[in-house]
Amino acid sequence: MNENRVAIIGIGMTKFGELWDYSYRDLITEAGIKAITDAGIEGEDIQELYVGSMSPGLFAGQEHIGALVADYSGLSGIPATRVEAACASGGLALRQAFLSIKSGRNDIVVAGGVEKMTDVPTGAAMMALMGAGDEQWEAFQGITFPALYALMARRHMKEYGTTLEQISEVSVKNHYNAQFNEYAQFRFEVSLEEVMDSPPVAEPLRLLHCSPITDGSAVVILASEKKARELKDEPIWISASALATDSLALHDRKSLSRMDSVILAAKKAYKQAGIEVKDIDFLEVHDCFSIAEILAIEGLGFCKLGEGGILTEEGQTKIDGDIPVNPSGGLKGKGHPVGTTGISQAVEATLQLRGEAGKRQVKDAEIGLIQNVGGSGATCVVHILSRG
Amino acid sequence: MNENRVAIIGIGMTKFGELWDYSYRDLITEAGIKAITDAGIEGEDIQELYVGSMSPGLFAGQEHIGALVADYSGLSGIPATRVEAACASGGLALRQAFLSIKSGRNDIVVAGGVEKMTDVPTGAAMMALMGAGDEQWEAFQGITFPALYALMARRHMKEYGTTLEQISEVSVKNHYNAQFNEYAQFRFEVSLEEVMDSPPVAEPLRLLHCSPITDGSAVVILASEKKARELKDEPIWISASALATDSLALHDRKSLSRMDSVILAAKKAYKQAGIEVKDIDFLEVHDCFSIAEILAIEGLGFCKLGEGGILTEEGQTKIDGDIPVNPSGGLKGKGHPVGTTGISQAVEATLQLRGEAGKRQVKDAEIGLIQNVGGSGATCVVHILSRG
Repeated sequence: MNENRVAIIGIGMTKFGELWDYSYRDLITEAGIKAITDAGIEGEDIQELYVGSMSPGLFAGQEHIGALVADYSGLSGIPATRVEAACASGGLALRQAFLSIKSGRNDIVVAGGVEKMTDVPTGAAMMALMGAGDEQWEAFQGITFPALYALMARRHMKEYGTTLEQISEVSVKNHYNAQFNEYAQFRFEVSLEEVMDSPPVAEPLRLLHCSPITDGSAVVILASEKKARELKDEPIWISASALATDSLALHDRKSLSRMDSVILAAKKAYKQAGIEVKDIDFLEVHDCFSIAEILAIEGLGFCKLGEGGILTEEGQTKIDGDIPVNPSGGLKGKGHPVGTTGISQAVEATLQLRGEAGKRQVKDAEIGLIQNVGGSGATCVVHILSRG
Repeated sequence: MNENRVAIIGIGMTKFGELWDYSYRDLITEAGIKAITDAGIEGEDIQELYVGSMSPGLFAGQEHIGALVADYSGLSGIPATRVEAACASGGLALRQAFLSIKSGRNDIVVAGGVEKMTDVPTGAAMMALMGAGDEQWEAFQGITFPALYALMARRHMKEYGTTLEQISEVSVKNHYNAQFNEYAQFRFEVSLEEVMDSPPVAEPLRLLHCSPITDGSAVVILASEKKARELKDEPIWISASALATDSLALHDRKSLSRMDSVILAAKKAYKQAGIEVKDIDFLEVHDCFSIAEILAIEGLGFCKLGEGGILTEEGQTKIDGDIPVNPSGGLKGKGHPVGTTGISQAVEATLQLRGEAGKRQVKDAEIGLIQNVGGSGATCVVHILSRG
């Protein structure tokens, strides 16, 4: 691999939420136009595109997503590829776009994520989402995603004494942060009591421990070092891009109380970037259920295994804490259009590193890490972004 | 891009057909084991994998395919990515695996394709397959894939005087070739009369102009030049890998009687390989409907636009003709597990170039071209393979 550096030069996002007036293609077109405008380029400058989408066949009756996005962006002709790893599809798209430039074969490449989840009946959405787990060993037995994460939460509570209050504090913090994010689905605070008293979904997890069903799209434009310096005074650099996998079904894992794909991807990412955990100023992590944020900060090395609940309870993961986690509001507050999430994390990290995150700005943000998980942890993608 | 050469060092395939005893994951596991055995490597030598699958969510209730395949191959941990471009998903997987090695970051990478299509009701299969077209402008209006290709056939007949007999000769030839392919779904001959008299599907196309619904998987193992020379006396080289797109919906195309994505991808591929059309010894092309083979040989430059029917009628595309097309039996005779097809073309080309194609062996095969199409032509992937 050569030493080309890769930068983010443009970002764009739709509002996240139940967007009845948007079709699948409307979403990514809007995010794409915003990103192109932000980058200050023309469509014809784009040499390749990657798009992450988890289940457009089931959610929107549409596959063949690469060509669709190229077509509706006026870019027909260019190489266009859809990638999928359930809820980590966006992270995969970012990785492939990064590699396309890193390899030296292109100078400007787009990575997008898009999902339109609210147009189908609940049963169809559940079927689609269970496609992220193991169909034969999990979905077929009737387990749902909240139940898979409930198993992990129970195990974590048993092994480490993690409390439901600690898990609930993740939801409280992320709702608090989401207030300040104009793109977020839920711009309101929830109290610890409200989280603890919300309706049970899969014990111990309650409604306010679960991220919502969301429509939304996000796009980032990547450039080679040469192009980035021509186009931007302060491009944001991607210093690591790491992907790791684990068993698809939970029962095949070595442990239910940690995610080995996260640990492996993080290790590779720190090595690539040549940095240590302590160098990171903030995180965007994959809190599809609030227990997942605790598993994330532990797997990424911000505390020992089992101490993520304590870190959260102490307030260290708040925007003004020692290690701010999910200043965007995370999946819980911002929303979780599954294939989009990995790209929206890159958008948030770019805003933070540019100093454009407004009331949710992390002070002196120089290096940020984003972590995107597929299913119950069978895929993890980690990227490290920096100002310098 | 550096000058690393990329080779195919292992191939594996399941039988194609209605495989009631195989699940989705059984298929790719069997093909993968055969490919690893053929390459003479161990699973642990594999550094990354890409898998093409069009619509496993709708066909098998399963997404998150990269992690699934890594898991069931005993490779959990490694980077694993699913790519999708409808029926060109296999070609995309081959391209990404090629790029992974070409970039210099890996030495041994797997490209697989898998589809299990026969476990769902016909309506569900039609819904899945129409995801390859434009959901809003085509599927929603009630058009099916045979009808889209029927429109192209009609236009070709009107513009160029192509006859239904000429189109039918494609089916006759491909069924003839499939007899000699142990992996083929239809190992029997059909006569011109049988094709012309088969039941109408979408006029002018009849049943025997349409490729079947198929279960099957294929896997190829790619290696860097250094590794390939260590492992194989005569590796097969990939000298070009090109991807191009076009409008998703047929009505947005400049012409219905040609595929611009094919023309563009071919042009890029010939340039990459530094060869001309006349250097190619045989083709595997995407005859999802028999008219598509005519569009393919025209778009790839083996005759002028409009002359593909004549070339076929004259017998030039037979195994012993001037330019053998689909010695494997093509999609019509071999079967068409949509996401697998692009990889199965690479398997056939490798067998031909190794001289291991038995009774369907093309004489003195030194350079082969494989062409994989998504939907009605919105994606085209072209690879060129060679002995030397």
